[in-house]
Amino acid sequence: MGQEFFLIDCGEGAQMQLLAYKQKAVRIRHIFISHLHGDHYFGLAGLLSSLHLNGRTEDLRLYGPPGLSEILITQFKYSDTRLQYRLHFRELAQVREPILETDQLTVETIPLNHRIQCTGFLFREKTGKRRINKQTLPPNLSHHQLRRLKEGKDLYDAAENLIHTNEQLTLPPRAPRSYAYCSDTGYFENMVEQISGVDLLYHESTFLDDQRERATETFHSTAKQAAAIAKLASVGKLILGHYSSRYRDLSPFLEEAKTVFENTVLSIEGEDIVLEE
Amino acid sequence: MGQEFFLIDCGEGAQMQLLAYKQKAVRIRHIFISHLHGDHYFGLAGLLSSLHLNGRTEDLRLYGPPGLSEILITQFKYSDTRLQYRLHFRELAQVREPILETDQLTVETIPLNHRIQCTGFLFREKTGKRRINKQTLPPNLSHHQLRRLKEGKDLYDAAENLIHTNEQLTLPPRAPRSYAYCSDTGYFENMVEQISGVDLLYHESTFLDDQRERATETFHSTAKQAAAIAKLASVGKLILGHYSSRYRDLSPFLEEAKTVFENTVLSIEGEDIVLEE
Repeated sequence: MGQEFFLIDCGEGAQMQLLAYKQKAVRIRHIFISHLHGDHYFGLAGLLSSLHLNGRTEDLRLYGPPGLSEILITQFKYSDTRLQYRLHFRELAQVREPILETDQLTVETIPLNHRIQCTGFLFREKTGKRRINKQTLPPNLSHHQLRRLKEGKDLYDAAENLIHTNEQLTLPPRAPRSYAYCSDTGYFENMVEQISGVDLLYHESTFLDDQRERATETFHSTAKQAAAIAKLASVGKLILGHYSSRYRDLSPFLEEAKTVFENTVLSIEGEDIVLEE
Repeated sequence: MGQEFFLIDCGEGAQMQLLAYKQKAVRIRHIFISHLHGDHYFGLAGLLSSLHLNGRTEDLRLYGPPGLSEILITQFKYSDTRLQYRLHFRELAQVREPILETDQLTVETIPLNHRIQCTGFLFREKTGKRRINKQTLPPNLSHHQLRRLKEGKDLYDAAENLIHTNEQLTLPPRAPRSYAYCSDTGYFENMVEQISGVDLLYHESTFLDDQRERATETFHSTAKQAAAIAKLASVGKLILGHYSSRYRDLSPFLEEAKTVFENTVLSIEGEDIVLEE
């Protein structure tokens, strides 16, 4: 988001995939781990070690469940590694709580329903500044004047002894965007109120509907169940993912979900999903 | 070796690479970990977890330094994983010791010289059975007769009331093969006596000779130093590996080593090196 890069979960090989997709791991300043099943964090120790070996000195903030710091500390102890950068660890609980606030956004946890402690993450952009309306703007304004306009101030035109109101020269801030990441979880309506109206929802869909019982047993969801949550929460767009390796062809996931919630896409390794400005 | 598959060290992504190179991880029954730097074991928890999820029930034997079992137990504790198969852990020390003996081979550790505890592994085939000499063999022998011949027994031909001596019908067993894996280590002549005369030596060569001081500081070796060990130990063939990522072109490793020890090859990701029967 803007110049900030966030990493959510970090399975084995994540550092190689970041490299393969030309994403610079060094730009990441916040890493969020949903739960301690290996497919969600076995790449973390490798990524943190490589950042260390590549000379990172900037602080890194890590958010994850109890146990994660113990696992990392044990690994670093036996490899006799003293990180060259500060790694701040925020231990998460199985409750809804705000965990990060920057100038641009807030992040809070979303309690999910999995076999072990597991939380999703809800990113909410803050309301930005007013936007300059190029159609009504007088020429030759200074940077100072433009900044004041974005902050909602009026403009005083000394030459003509005239006040332009802010409403004349600016447009309202664009609507703040929001993204909810919900994996892994069984079908869990408790999350609906919290994620209501988000622009983008990633919801796991490990199984198709023929495996609904297996989904319940293993605290996973079907594509239809993910779509039902998207519909109940009136989200803008649904992204499916976390498909069981038993399925070769992913198109039935999209078909099943679309019968319940039309604006659905499949997440595919290496593909970007852009939230429009 | 024969029907036995051994895995030596297990860096991040090892399970994906086994899959990519069509090696069945399920066939591995012994895993050896030299030391606890991440590039040698960060793929282990993922491999062990995948074997579990894929339904393995056969025992697996793991050999590694102190700390490895604690790391794995901590990870399995927080993921609430109870392996479906028995994982036997043999804790290694910084000494030379026999750690495995089967019908076919023995394995012992090779103390190396690295920043943390680190041992290599020496595989020695046992002397096999005598081999049938097809050129002198009478026709139509039973499986029982053939097995007795391989065990060194003579053959009694009842029809002709004649004894064929074992020497007439068999060839001596082929020479037992041996393989030493030595990584990671600084230049360390102490290992020479132990690995003397092995058919195949894998010796790390992290650096070229221009970085000899850096090699010493970091307890790694140069290609020339690896070749010097190969020469002192009169091994059959030397395999180089563990190249620093600073080098794009690996051919200078081979050139430098060959100035000291001719029968050298580069290990390349995904390539097989076969010890002739």
